[in-house]
Amino acid sequence: MSDPFVVVGADAAGLSAASKFRREAPDREVVVFEKGRWISYAYCGMPYFIAGYVDRMSNLLSLSPSEVDERGIDLQRGHEVVAVDPDAKRVTVETADGDRFERAYGDLLVATGARATTGPFDVRGVDGAFTLHDMDAAAAIDAYVAEPDAYDPARADVSAVDRERVDRNAAMPAPETAAVVGGGYVGVEVAEALTERGLDVHVFHRSGHLLSPFGETVGNRVEAALEAEGVTVHTNAPVDALVGDGRIEAIEVGAGGGEAPERVPVDMAVVGVGIRPNTDLLDGTGVDLGPGEAIRVDDHGRTSLPDVYAAGDCATARHAVTGEPDWVPLGLTANRAGRAIGATVAGNPTPVGDIAGTAAVKAFDAEAARVGILDRDEAEAAGFDPVSETVTAGSRSGYYPGAAETDVTLVADRDTGRLLGGSIVGTDRAAVRIDTLATAIEADMTVSEVERLDLAYAPPFSPVWDPILVAAKVLNGTLDD
Amino acid sequence: MSDPFVVVGADAAGLSAASKFRREAPDREVVVFEKGRWISYAYCGMPYFIAGYVDRMSNLLSLSPSEVDERGIDLQRGHEVVAVDPDAKRVTVETADGDRFERAYGDLLVATGARATTGPFDVRGVDGAFTLHDMDAAAAIDAYVAEPDAYDPARADVSAVDRERVDRNAAMPAPETAAVVGGGYVGVEVAEALTERGLDVHVFHRSGHLLSPFGETVGNRVEAALEAEGVTVHTNAPVDALVGDGRIEAIEVGAGGGEAPERVPVDMAVVGVGIRPNTDLLDGTGVDLGPGEAIRVDDHGRTSLPDVYAAGDCATARHAVTGEPDWVPLGLTANRAGRAIGATVAGNPTPVGDIAGTAAVKAFDAEAARVGILDRDEAEAAGFDPVSETVTAGSRSGYYPGAAETDVTLVADRDTGRLLGGSIVGTDRAAVRIDTLATAIEADMTVSEVERLDLAYAPPFSPVWDPILVAAKVLNGTLDD
Repeated sequence: MSDPFVVVGADAAGLSAASKFRREAPDREVVVFEKGRWISYAYCGMPYFIAGYVDRMSNLLSLSPSEVDERGIDLQRGHEVVAVDPDAKRVTVETADGDRFERAYGDLLVATGARATTGPFDVRGVDGAFTLHDMDAAAAIDAYVAEPDAYDPARADVSAVDRERVDRNAAMPAPETAAVVGGGYVGVEVAEALTERGLDVHVFHRSGHLLSPFGETVGNRVEAALEAEGVTVHTNAPVDALVGDGRIEAIEVGAGGGEAPERVPVDMAVVGVGIRPNTDLLDGTGVDLGPGEAIRVDDHGRTSLPDVYAAGDCATARHAVTGEPDWVPLGLTANRAGRAIGATVAGNPTPVGDIAGTAAVKAFDAEAARVGILDRDEAEAAGFDPVSETVTAGSRSGYYPGAAETDVTLVADRDTGRLLGGSIVGTDRAAVRIDTLATAIEADMTVSEVERLDLAYAPPFSPVWDPILVAAKVLNGTLDD
Repeated sequence: MSDPFVVVGADAAGLSAASKFRREAPDREVVVFEKGRWISYAYCGMPYFIAGYVDRMSNLLSLSPSEVDERGIDLQRGHEVVAVDPDAKRVTVETADGDRFERAYGDLLVATGARATTGPFDVRGVDGAFTLHDMDAAAAIDAYVAEPDAYDPARADVSAVDRERVDRNAAMPAPETAAVVGGGYVGVEVAEALTERGLDVHVFHRSGHLLSPFGETVGNRVEAALEAEGVTVHTNAPVDALVGDGRIEAIEVGAGGGEAPERVPVDMAVVGVGIRPNTDLLDGTGVDLGPGEAIRVDDHGRTSLPDVYAAGDCATARHAVTGEPDWVPLGLTANRAGRAIGATVAGNPTPVGDIAGTAAVKAFDAEAARVGILDRDEAEAAGFDPVSETVTAGSRSGYYPGAAETDVTLVADRDTGRLLGGSIVGTDRAAVRIDTLATAIEADMTVSEVERLDLAYAPPFSPVWDPILVAAKVLNGTLDD
């Protein structure tokens, strides 16, 4: 009897791996250690819970602990793996009760995820200041936003929730003005959510346009979509400090150029300036790290340590355009890599798949998406000579009601014509169109090949020349010059 | 000075070719002969005009004759090309005024389109019976459907319209019950349109499910969508005859099996049982024909006659899956091939591009689309061993409001795993997702490669595993067995 497949972390990657392994190797043992109480929740759904689009927190759970048990997976919550000995192939586990023990593994998957960074701020101990990187924070924000007499405790209907924290936030007076620090996709989603809850929302973003990885066209249009719904967007506005004694009272924005910082009074702040991979567990093991200080893995999710895999937000993945490891922590990547590693460990070697950096975000009625390499510097660093064009085209035939302006940006390599990246923003079926570009990028298509794609034409859904085809035509014209 | 580029037909293919040629060869002459009065209209928009979604017929025109003139194109309406002499490189033209003359060409493009077939029926001379294959028919239907005192003549606001026919139809009492003969996409769209106009609509389809080229899953779901809005769908119901003296009174449906035909009283019928390519012009020239008796062309749109091209609904195109000529008359194909031929004739050889048979259709709130080869017999005839799976998956994360069941069918070749075709039907952003499959098919992807695509995940638009990925996973599992 071989040693078990040990998985560290019970979220998307970890439980996908354990479930797939269990199905493919029903006679072998799999143990999942999770340091917290939460498992398998929809991280990406938290803003929509806060917005009130989702009534019950339990709706965000994919799997309950009992469902995991029923799958034949030995799930140990409140068990933190604190050390790995790759030579002895053992992990050291500390329980929430203070016990400490070692466990041998046959194969090990590190799926420890990522944690929110807060830049120069410490939100701990400041009432009304939050990061949004776990369900307890989502429950606390949801409670804090509500008037004390209007809060419905049934919304946080999961036993794992930190009830004391929820109750404390629910008891505070509801905020009226919120600062969202960071205009990435979580920031944009939280801005929508808090606006839906009736707050006056200010978004502060360090650089010149929101959603930096989506490019300027998308950033500007999403900014307009937020402002149309009453959000105040501050660009080139790095936040220096959260101000407040006990409860937050203001944020200070660095004006730069020697001017005095601006102080914006708020009674709530959500800080979403970034995340970083949780790799402390492997400190001292000599494991190779990659971009973003994430655990570097090969095309089967293997780390540089024997029989140790990594997947999800703590691990790299190979980028389809560059062929090099990259760190783009997103949900599908975690699920897919976990599933592939589960199969591989079970004896059916399965590649984890490339990433294309595909991402989508909603801002009220605007839908935005991006894929591949959009940034000029990033493209040049990867050895390309990027050429870019942006077009505005209709989402439907011009005569069909509901046709909406859709902006498409395509980036290609001048020498080869290869498609490197793209973005799409609009209000009518805009985001899902990015999948066409993701597929073209993974197939190493040129812009000429994209221009000749036989995409669907039907007046209610697309004009004769789909916005993607229009963009490809224009970029091809530029490449031919 | 060389002889002009002569184009026969002033619709999508013909005018795309002339316009592109004019831009790329500004010093050479281009003449477009069009036998009728209409040019460059949105064939696919006619059902939506009838439905009332489009207020004015002029909205369906892409280009007016004067705009064509402004492009420097010599457009001759009312000029029918009646013969081609490929040896002498001359065409014979008859004008609406009865004149007849010859014209030399340097290159010739035949873009004569297709015409509606009516099966065993003759709709001419039967009031209330129509085919829908030109704008005069659309205007007549629109007028016939209205109550005489409620018809707004400004809806047919194009000088080319057959005003006498419109007036005659407007003067007749409005119909109450309509038969739509043929359940292809035009039939489905007309059924929706007439229902929107208040009619009691019956659709009669020869085979067991609507939208035969879309497969059974789509057909059945579109049938349900139509019936939910009050349309009565008759499948396995071949129509034998239109009955009526002067005005239509009923249709007769063959019951088969020796039973008496069913007679359904109607006061309107729209027959949409198929179209066939207009190739009479080349009779006697010895030109090669291909599937559907369409003019066979190569990858640059060249026919078997020297310097004679063909494009649009009268021509074949190469199918991306089989690599063989096929006949799938659709709007993008016509526009794209015309544009490419215009460039080629101007001295910049440009392939017309493959087709993938991509098509989409709307039926009230249902959206359906298809691509590639879905039919088992068709796949086998092309040398494949087809394996198919159909899944039902959510269009959004399950907790996100508006998530809707989306049915995806994928077909692959058992030996190679290559994706051969697919269909998608649902109510939430379903149709545009077909473009992902069209791109995968044109890239010759396997189902394994599709399963590992990095498609966008964002709760409002797609679950972690997009319906396409779910289908690929399931089909891959079947292929592995």
